[in-house]
Amino acid sequence: MQIAIALYERFTVLDAIGPYQTLSSLPDTETVFVAEQAGPVRDDTGSLALVADKSFAEIQRPDIVVVPGGPGQSDQMENEALLGWLRAVDATTTWTTSVCTGSLALAAAGLLKGRRATSHWLALAELDRLGVESTGERVVFDGKYVTGAGVSAGIDMGLTLAGKIAGDEHAQTVQLLTEYDPQPPYDAGSPEKAPAHIVAKFRAGSRFGQ
Amino acid sequence: MQIAIALYERFTVLDAIGPYQTLSSLPDTETVFVAEQAGPVRDDTGSLALVADKSFAEIQRPDIVVVPGGPGQSDQMENEALLGWLRAVDATTTWTTSVCTGSLALAAAGLLKGRRATSHWLALAELDRLGVESTGERVVFDGKYVTGAGVSAGIDMGLTLAGKIAGDEHAQTVQLLTEYDPQPPYDAGSPEKAPAHIVAKFRAGSRFGQ
Repeated sequence: MQIAIALYERFTVLDAIGPYQTLSSLPDTETVFVAEQAGPVRDDTGSLALVADKSFAEIQRPDIVVVPGGPGQSDQMENEALLGWLRAVDATTTWTTSVCTGSLALAAAGLLKGRRATSHWLALAELDRLGVESTGERVVFDGKYVTGAGVSAGIDMGLTLAGKIAGDEHAQTVQLLTEYDPQPPYDAGSPEKAPAHIVAKFRAGSRFGQ
Repeated sequence: MQIAIALYERFTVLDAIGPYQTLSSLPDTETVFVAEQAGPVRDDTGSLALVADKSFAEIQRPDIVVVPGGPGQSDQMENEALLGWLRAVDATTTWTTSVCTGSLALAAAGLLKGRRATSHWLALAELDRLGVESTGERVVFDGKYVTGAGVSAGIDMGLTLAGKIAGDEHAQTVQLLTEYDPQPPYDAGSPEKAPAHIVAKFRAGSRFGQ
């Protein structure tokens, strides 16, 4: 089985690494980071580059595709290099997945029309505008399309998918070895739970509008 | 403020990315990935390289240092390039931190002697053997030394430290924007919670012994 994780400039690193860390130990699985051109791809802070070992042209039939989100997603909404590749590989994937605003790229590629999906909480309305039925759930399955909410939700998405593919015991092993027993020091991880004035500030400043 | 995240071959990616994603948005902060030599550093699965933009020689006075763990940590326990650098920068850091078996490298550098610290659950006894008082807590503060448990605990470590440095509201903002509202599909993230036969299998096969 081959997992392809797509990178583009100004992606958010944890969006890609959550699924990577939870899916890459699936049995008989090769994981490859892929981008328009092979080589280093810099993230949204500019402080880190991940190396895409392959170009889109070199990876034509992955079984699973993962699209992370991040500020750079905006520049991808009309980039046929990514969108065309997503359409092409989706024809033969077993699972087509995203984290955070990666679902907007899947939607722009026309792959989520009329489907249920999730995204970063600030991007849910934008997902609706793209003809998708958005939901604030953390992990959403609709057929072979699996979408995770913002950034860290990729860990839950990957772990849930690992369980579907290889069984509960494999996924529990991954959870144990990554010691995924979360104990956040605050309870502010969703717009329903965070202080209202912080939520309001980011809604007001969102690149997606209200 | 400068944060230096140390890389070495066969580190575990999420160990480094949890603190990165939660600490790099601190106000007036530059984050730099650093290794013995600048350039790509490949992780424990071999499927991903992160780029260290700087060599140890180039980064001499970071305010925060982060040491991730991973299978490659074993090879670092006598590597003076890393251990000597850790000793040197620790002289002026505000916070010296680790995730997972990164604490074993801090211990090997002599920085945790007699202190309380944590590590991956499989490595706690090894931490004791190195003269450290191990604890199974997820995030441990002892003076300026902050250690996180296995892999995903780096997210909680980073978020907790972000709160100490920049206040609760900053850390809650980071939690909200990374949508860190964990909903694992299983409850198997610690040796106390995972199925006993899985725990026993990995204890028996551990590179640290029993």
